[in-house]
Amino acid sequence: MGSEQPVGLFDSGVGGLTVLAQVVRLLPRETVVYFGDTLNLPYGDKTPSQLLELGDRIVRFLLSQRVKCIVFACNTSSSVSLEFLQQRYPIPMLGLLQAGARLALAASRRMRIGVLATMATVKSGAYERALKSLDPRVEVFSQAAPRLVPLIEAGAIYTPDTKAALEEYLAPLREADIDTLILGCTHYPFLAPLVSALLGPEVVLVDPAVAVAEKLQALLQTRGLMSSGVPQHRVFVSGDPASFDRLASTLYPHPLPLAVKVDLR
Amino acid sequence: MGSEQPVGLFDSGVGGLTVLAQVVRLLPRETVVYFGDTLNLPYGDKTPSQLLELGDRIVRFLLSQRVKCIVFACNTSSSVSLEFLQQRYPIPMLGLLQAGARLALAASRRMRIGVLATMATVKSGAYERALKSLDPRVEVFSQAAPRLVPLIEAGAIYTPDTKAALEEYLAPLREADIDTLILGCTHYPFLAPLVSALLGPEVVLVDPAVAVAEKLQALLQTRGLMSSGVPQHRVFVSGDPASFDRLASTLYPHPLPLAVKVDLR
Repeated sequence: MGSEQPVGLFDSGVGGLTVLAQVVRLLPRETVVYFGDTLNLPYGDKTPSQLLELGDRIVRFLLSQRVKCIVFACNTSSSVSLEFLQQRYPIPMLGLLQAGARLALAASRRMRIGVLATMATVKSGAYERALKSLDPRVEVFSQAAPRLVPLIEAGAIYTPDTKAALEEYLAPLREADIDTLILGCTHYPFLAPLVSALLGPEVVLVDPAVAVAEKLQALLQTRGLMSSGVPQHRVFVSGDPASFDRLASTLYPHPLPLAVKVDLR
Repeated sequence: MGSEQPVGLFDSGVGGLTVLAQVVRLLPRETVVYFGDTLNLPYGDKTPSQLLELGDRIVRFLLSQRVKCIVFACNTSSSVSLEFLQQRYPIPMLGLLQAGARLALAASRRMRIGVLATMATVKSGAYERALKSLDPRVEVFSQAAPRLVPLIEAGAIYTPDTKAALEEYLAPLREADIDTLILGCTHYPFLAPLVSALLGPEVVLVDPAVAVAEKLQALLQTRGLMSSGVPQHRVFVSGDPASFDRLASTLYPHPLPLAVKVDLR
C-alpha cells in the first residue's frame, strides 16, 4: 500500500459528494476515486443480499483502481455491507455509522436523537445499535425517507415535492421532540437548509460525513498513508455519466473530471 | 501536468501490450492507464472518420483518467488519427510511425523495407511517406494482413490458421526480396517467432514499440515529467473484460490488474 495511491469512495449516486467535500476540505492532497452506482439506485429499497453483491463488485472495481482504502460514503452500505466486506478484503474500509453516532451523541443535550435514513438503513437498526452501544440511555427515533434519494438524484432540491416529502417524514420526529437529527444518508445534506427550516434552530443537524473525514485523516496518519501529491480525482458511475455530471456540477462546489461509465462484473 | 500522473496508452485490443512491455522495461516507475477498444476491433477495417471518432472518445476518456501524455500504441490510429487529435487536445501524444520508420531505416542494409500492417494503415500510406521522407531512396513494399488481428484477439497464435494466413501475407514480401520487415501493427510482435521462421534469419524484424518507448522516455525527461513513484497500472476495455484478462495473462509477461469495462461517450 503506497501513500500516493488514491482513496476509494462510493455511494449509490451523488450523495457521496457530500462526503467527498469533507474529505477534500480536510485532506486536500489526497486523490479520490469516486464511484456512484447510479444504475442501481436507490439503495434504500434493496435487500441485504443485493447490497452485499453490489458492494462486493464495487470493492473489486476500486481495487482495480489501486486505492489504498475505501470510504463507504453511503449510510445504507455502511449499515448493511461494510462489516461483511471488511472481513473479505485486506484493505482498510471506513463507514459512516460509528463516526456519525459519536458525533450525534456529542451534539445532543437531551439524548433524544432522530435518524432520517433510507428504508434499508432503518430496517438494519444499525444507527440505533451504534448509538445505544455508545450510551444505553439514549432514545432513538428512526424515520425511513424512501422518496428523498430519487428526488435528489433527479435534481429536485428546492421543489414543492421535496418539501412535501420532507414535511411528512419530519412530522413524527418533531412530535418525538428530538434535539438532534442524524442526516443518515449522504444525500440528505443537500436538503439541510430545508430540513433546518422545517425543524427549527433548536434541533442540531448532524452530518456523519464530517466525522468520517476525520476518521479517514486519522487512519491515513496512523498508517503513514498520507499523500503529498497533487490530487487528481477520477469519477466513475454505473448509469448515465452525462446526467451525473450535470447534477454534480450543481451540487458539488469544486470542479470534477467527466464521469466515466463502467460496467461492473 | 504533474510528473506523478500516469501515461495513457491505447490500442484496439491486446496489441498495445507489446508497447506496454517496452514502456515498462524502459520506464519502470511510470504508471500506465491502458485502454483496449475491444468492442470496436479490428481497427484495420474502419474508415478514417470512424477512427477519428473512436480516437477522440478514447483521448477524452484518458484525459478523465488524468494522464500526462498519450501513446497511440496502435499503428492504425498512429497512421490515421494521431495528427488530427494532436491538434485538438493540449497534451503530448506519441505514435509509432516516425519512430518505427527511423528504426527500420537504421536496420536496413539494402533499403528494401517491407511493411506488414492492417488495411487502414496500408491504405493511409503513412509508413511509406514516413520512410521516404527520411530517405527518398528507400523501396517500400506494403502488405495488408486483415486476418491477423482477429486471430490474435481470439488467442490463436501458434495455430494452422494463423500460419496459413501469415504464409499468404508474407509471400509477396519474400518475392520482393525485402531485407527488413516493419511489424506495422502492435499485435504482430506476438507472431514474431512465426514470422521469423517463415522469412528466414536474413530479414530483420523491426518492432516500432521499442522506438516509441525510447521516444516516450525522451519526452518525459525533456519536460521534467518522469515519475518517481511505484507504478500502479490500470486497465480498461470497451468489450468483455474477462476475455481480455484471459488473453493478457497468456500474452503479457507481468501481472496486470483486472480490466474494467467502460462505455465511452
